[in-house]
Amino acid sequence: MAIDIDAFLSTSARSMRRSLIRELLKLTSRGGIISFAGGFPDPATFPVRELEEVTRDVLTGQAHLALQYTITEGDPRLRDELARWMAKDGIRATQENVLITNGSQQGLDIVARVFLDPGDVIIVELPSYMGGLQAFRAYRVEMVGVPQDDQGIRTDRLAETLAHLAGEGRRPKFIYAVPDFQNPSGVTWTEERRQETLRLAGQYNTLVVEDNPYREIRFEGSAPPPIYALDQGERTVYLSTFSKTLCPGLRIGWMAAREDVIGQFVTAKQGMDLCSPAFTQAIAAEMCARDILYRRLPQITAVYRAKRDAMLRALEREMPEGVTWTHPEGGLFLWVRLPETMDTEALLQEAVEAENVAYVIGSGFFADGSGRHTMRLNFSFPSEKEIDEGIRRLARLVRRHLPVAVSSIRRRTTVSD
Amino acid sequence: MAIDIDAFLSTSARSMRRSLIRELLKLTSRGGIISFAGGFPDPATFPVRELEEVTRDVLTGQAHLALQYTITEGDPRLRDELARWMAKDGIRATQENVLITNGSQQGLDIVARVFLDPGDVIIVELPSYMGGLQAFRAYRVEMVGVPQDDQGIRTDRLAETLAHLAGEGRRPKFIYAVPDFQNPSGVTWTEERRQETLRLAGQYNTLVVEDNPYREIRFEGSAPPPIYALDQGERTVYLSTFSKTLCPGLRIGWMAAREDVIGQFVTAKQGMDLCSPAFTQAIAAEMCARDILYRRLPQITAVYRAKRDAMLRALEREMPEGVTWTHPEGGLFLWVRLPETMDTEALLQEAVEAENVAYVIGSGFFADGSGRHTMRLNFSFPSEKEIDEGIRRLARLVRRHLPVAVSSIRRRTTVSD
Repeated sequence: MAIDIDAFLSTSARSMRRSLIRELLKLTSRGGIISFAGGFPDPATFPVRELEEVTRDVLTGQAHLALQYTITEGDPRLRDELARWMAKDGIRATQENVLITNGSQQGLDIVARVFLDPGDVIIVELPSYMGGLQAFRAYRVEMVGVPQDDQGIRTDRLAETLAHLAGEGRRPKFIYAVPDFQNPSGVTWTEERRQETLRLAGQYNTLVVEDNPYREIRFEGSAPPPIYALDQGERTVYLSTFSKTLCPGLRIGWMAAREDVIGQFVTAKQGMDLCSPAFTQAIAAEMCARDILYRRLPQITAVYRAKRDAMLRALEREMPEGVTWTHPEGGLFLWVRLPETMDTEALLQEAVEAENVAYVIGSGFFADGSGRHTMRLNFSFPSEKEIDEGIRRLARLVRRHLPVAVSSIRRRTTVSD
Repeated sequence: MAIDIDAFLSTSARSMRRSLIRELLKLTSRGGIISFAGGFPDPATFPVRELEEVTRDVLTGQAHLALQYTITEGDPRLRDELARWMAKDGIRATQENVLITNGSQQGLDIVARVFLDPGDVIIVELPSYMGGLQAFRAYRVEMVGVPQDDQGIRTDRLAETLAHLAGEGRRPKFIYAVPDFQNPSGVTWTEERRQETLRLAGQYNTLVVEDNPYREIRFEGSAPPPIYALDQGERTVYLSTFSKTLCPGLRIGWMAAREDVIGQFVTAKQGMDLCSPAFTQAIAAEMCARDILYRRLPQITAVYRAKRDAMLRALEREMPEGVTWTHPEGGLFLWVRLPETMDTEALLQEAVEAENVAYVIGSGFFADGSGRHTMRLNFSFPSEKEIDEGIRRLARLVRRHLPVAVSSIRRRTTVSD
């Protein structure tokens, strides 16, 4: 007699949803599929030779430390290096302001653990990073969405939302922000929007959680400062990762915050996994100390710039009138909007089975379930050739389902199917 | 104006306590201290040369996978190897029954996330693993303690407790068990106690969470089967780790459970950190595939057997009458009981500052705050020479504070100070 496990589940477990992205990764591992679904870096950017050298040196010179437990805060040498890494963006920090995490996803879980009770309110962008929504949803909070435009979060709407909540006697615990080349939209917040968000956070006494994994992958334009640099962590928590600049396989993420806040995060992480692997931390510290990451950034950026350009060209060439997309200045993703009557979820099965192309449906990024006509496309993993062919397949699918009103005004430049 | 972070903390964060062990690790890093406090393996047991070879091969042959994201479940090859590893103990599993975690501590957090709501009841041993208590405490559950003797959990008392709770209409979500060379006590459950615990779990429809990190470190005697092997996961969840058999620096832990239960755990881990590092998983898989772990177990066990023997000899030689300790057949720890009127917490500062020796106070392992006269001693990390000297210092401290009634009957064999 098998026991019924559902009778044992916590309320949180009942409310969890499997990540659509993760489930899709399985779907798209079969041959022939061109996947714009994942968020994988291009393995060609991995510094394999340098990692071989550094790893050998770590095992030769410091195995007794690198193979042992380390403190929950993380390798002090790596935390020093991360303070130096963030200094290039105007962030003032010492190792006391840094906690090492398993990717920035663990940082999201820690933020939620330390700040959120069931029923609490937080502010998220529409759209927002799916992994963030998933982490917060496990704590059964209310996520209130604020729309985004091409300059970042709509601070006029943010002000309205905060005023409305205050009127109900409710104070959001934090505003969740992905201000640089947002996953999923590719949008970067202007400095004005960053300043205004901080001003509003001060006025309504809430925090800002700045999730910034893509900042270094900038193709063009000038970088506004991180939100954290604008208040030096007064009410901002900063999350980042080496998954896009070094490789994801080491899972090196980190949080930066005021010392008292880091202390709370450390206590939470103790119960969650004691510490992150000393081995991968020692390797990452050495990669920083030898300036390998710094030196490689231009190469990595060049690879992804060329891929973004390939995707923009292919979209321009293939997509019919009525379809729009963002032009990200960096990062790994762009965002496509079909005519509003279309539904990317309804199209996905046909995309995968008939056209051998995959994307992530947009609604998974909207806390309010909207955005059904949108999709996220990743350009970092597929080759330029696959991008060309994949967008051709995707456009063919879209054209097949285009509403009559739109397809009749199809642009002349569109390739017919 | 600095904001008051306390006003933002979750109820869970307010209830968290920093691990006493972790805090002590900092205290005891200064020179001259002999520490029995941590739970560190002996770095001499780390297979450094083999890791150099395997790591080089992984980077040469599979960098595109080992440096990339992997699925939440973990590297399929490692999960296959873990199924094989557990088979030697009579556990029937396939990779579908296994989830890779960051050490077994993350397994404890996942178990709590998936099964526990605030106010739920769970059963723990008195004493029990402090990291487990810390993980569960973050979920604000009620931990009901059941005493232990030298055969394991007192199943007569467990039956009483379950009956009492049932009488109140309360059903514990699970019984938390560390049945092999328990941390902290070193006690191993007999097979009878394991069977009886499973029978009671069935009778009262609760689960068993078996945390088994030390099983392979057996010095003598015959091993009872894991609890999981007795019901093949019908109502048991199994947690283990390579931290003691390979090294802690890779943070390779895992959970084994029924497929439907693993599915719930995977969903929880997705929101917690997406996946564990592919790099360390690829290395561990290769270490298993080459049978390196299997071959090294006798050496590792021999190192720790000699250290345990050294500690038992020193205790026998140095400790006054009225002090007792366990004789573990394996693992990394033994457990010392001072006369009941003594308080190891009150003595700790003097131990560290005057005698340059450290231990973990026992009360941290008791969910009910009892055990103030007990302490946990680790024998895996210090050298045999340090064990001799450290126990000499500890005994000197104990004798200095021994109640008069006890010190007057001090054994003749005791070395005078």
